[in-house]
Amino acid sequence: MIQVGIIGAGSWGIALAVLLHNNGHKVTIWSIIEDEVNMLKVQREHKDKLPGVKIAEDILITNDLKEAASNKDMLVLAVPSPYTRSTSRMLREYVSENQLIVNVAKGIEESTLYTLTDIIEEEIPGVNAAVLSGPSHAEEVGREIPTTCVAGAKAKENAEFIQNTFMNEVFRVYTSPDILGIELGGALKNVIALAAGIADGLGYGDNTKAALITRGIAEISRLGTIMGGKKETFSGLTGIGDLIVTCASMHSRNRRAGILIGKGYTMDEAMKEVKMVVEGVYSAKAAIKLAEKYQVSLPIIEQVNEVLFFEKPAAEAVKELMIRDKKIEHSDLPWE
Amino acid sequence: MIQVGIIGAGSWGIALAVLLHNNGHKVTIWSIIEDEVNMLKVQREHKDKLPGVKIAEDILITNDLKEAASNKDMLVLAVPSPYTRSTSRMLREYVSENQLIVNVAKGIEESTLYTLTDIIEEEIPGVNAAVLSGPSHAEEVGREIPTTCVAGAKAKENAEFIQNTFMNEVFRVYTSPDILGIELGGALKNVIALAAGIADGLGYGDNTKAALITRGIAEISRLGTIMGGKKETFSGLTGIGDLIVTCASMHSRNRRAGILIGKGYTMDEAMKEVKMVVEGVYSAKAAIKLAEKYQVSLPIIEQVNEVLFFEKPAAEAVKELMIRDKKIEHSDLPWE
Repeated sequence: MIQVGIIGAGSWGIALAVLLHNNGHKVTIWSIIEDEVNMLKVQREHKDKLPGVKIAEDILITNDLKEAASNKDMLVLAVPSPYTRSTSRMLREYVSENQLIVNVAKGIEESTLYTLTDIIEEEIPGVNAAVLSGPSHAEEVGREIPTTCVAGAKAKENAEFIQNTFMNEVFRVYTSPDILGIELGGALKNVIALAAGIADGLGYGDNTKAALITRGIAEISRLGTIMGGKKETFSGLTGIGDLIVTCASMHSRNRRAGILIGKGYTMDEAMKEVKMVVEGVYSAKAAIKLAEKYQVSLPIIEQVNEVLFFEKPAAEAVKELMIRDKKIEHSDLPWE
Repeated sequence: MIQVGIIGAGSWGIALAVLLHNNGHKVTIWSIIEDEVNMLKVQREHKDKLPGVKIAEDILITNDLKEAASNKDMLVLAVPSPYTRSTSRMLREYVSENQLIVNVAKGIEESTLYTLTDIIEEEIPGVNAAVLSGPSHAEEVGREIPTTCVAGAKAKENAEFIQNTFMNEVFRVYTSPDILGIELGGALKNVIALAAGIADGLGYGDNTKAALITRGIAEISRLGTIMGGKKETFSGLTGIGDLIVTCASMHSRNRRAGILIGKGYTMDEAMKEVKMVVEGVYSAKAAIKLAEKYQVSLPIIEQVNEVLFFEKPAAEAVKELMIRDKKIEHSDLPWE
């Protein structure tokens, strides 16, 4: 049994708290919102964000960050990516040298082009930042549906510590040293999920979506490997795996927003309708900046940006993708 | 404009005939079944196999193989894989040296472990065998839904000839020299589609399916690269792309059969219910033989075989996949 603090009481934070509690660990959940803490203490369930998943009485729920973060064997940072920096800054005074923090949010900071562990390491000097990622909708993990993830850490023993803490009969955890590849795959997949949603909204079929997913991960991999991520990671659970689940599921806000845009909504109308943060809209901007910085061609992500920010009709964007230059699929392979 | 003979009047043969006719080519379709030819000549539509797709009057439909196969710039072999050998043998006398034959079926011959172009090349000495494959349900290609495929040929000019013949605004074609990788991905994906269907039938979610797809293509890639296919191909349209579409779509017979098995049907009951050839059942056997021959571990495909042929309960097979040894995701990547 270890002591874990979960920082953030959204659907993923709660699902992981319940999972870790089931695994026999001592869990504390923190939320910055006092009303949310009071509600969760009474109802032992987040009816808006993760209905049907009960939070056991011996999971401590608190608004006091010191109580949630001090003297823990592991912290799980589960706040939405726009709050990673501010939350890390608040955490700094409560954590000791070498504190293990497992980040489970996904995103890239648009202004700095930092990954989330870059931010954590900048805000908390001497921290030991790791990640847990993969095709894992909280709604399904909360219902104990078989799920796989990857624990990424610089040192093998840390990755294995995370693996041992989270793994059970319905939650299989692999390990990886490629934190950067895991983070880039997780952040950039949301842009492709928007594209897949747009194709669905236009009434296109499974063929179109499979093409967007396959060529989409090829783009992500092209950019990600130039940035230092490993090719293998993009073809693994946190790359193509997470992209598949995001593009297939109605749990995905990015896909839902895309569907509305495909049906003719503007980006603002779609965001209003979906109500929650549509991460892919921010990641789309960050991806374009990265493409410029690293001089990589990202045809699908470029078309998504055109549709989101420059009022290009979605059907025209798809048509342009279909008829551009005739290409070799993998230009490195030798011909006879 | 070129002259094309389509050998086989199933859903894919007809969809490609209509596509090539739309591209301005002169098309002849052949079926071995005289009644089918007569029906198609009258109705100009295959109401069972591809309802709603009209076959234009100037597409020739014939039961005479000589008429369909002689003096053509390209033959498209679109018969189900169990008939590839017998049909190739019949074709031999009508085709000239170096005839370009584009095979569009998928499978591995269980008795010989030959790919379909191996069979064609054995039966028709001197033939120029190529492939067209990718995430392309005939039902959607027939409705002109945007679709992508890969033309595989040994020589670049042949791959480009196929690309130029098929490509249009709704059908994007890439080229590749890796015929073997394309064929192995196409044949083996059906086994993983059965697994995905079984997970669906058991009531599991998108997380489980994404895991099966991702770890499934890792298995296929492991086996396929040892056999000589290229790693890149398995992460491309004919590998992961085709696997995604097969696992997502109710058009897939393999997935539908899997769902029934997950719900408790035996393999025979499921095959009877689905009515058409469930390719993955044959490929599952061939894959196990290949795994033994090449000494590769294929945990998902092994469990599918246990469920199909040894009455292992499907839920137990999934559980075994989840709790086996803790693993590194990609064991080649270096740790700090």
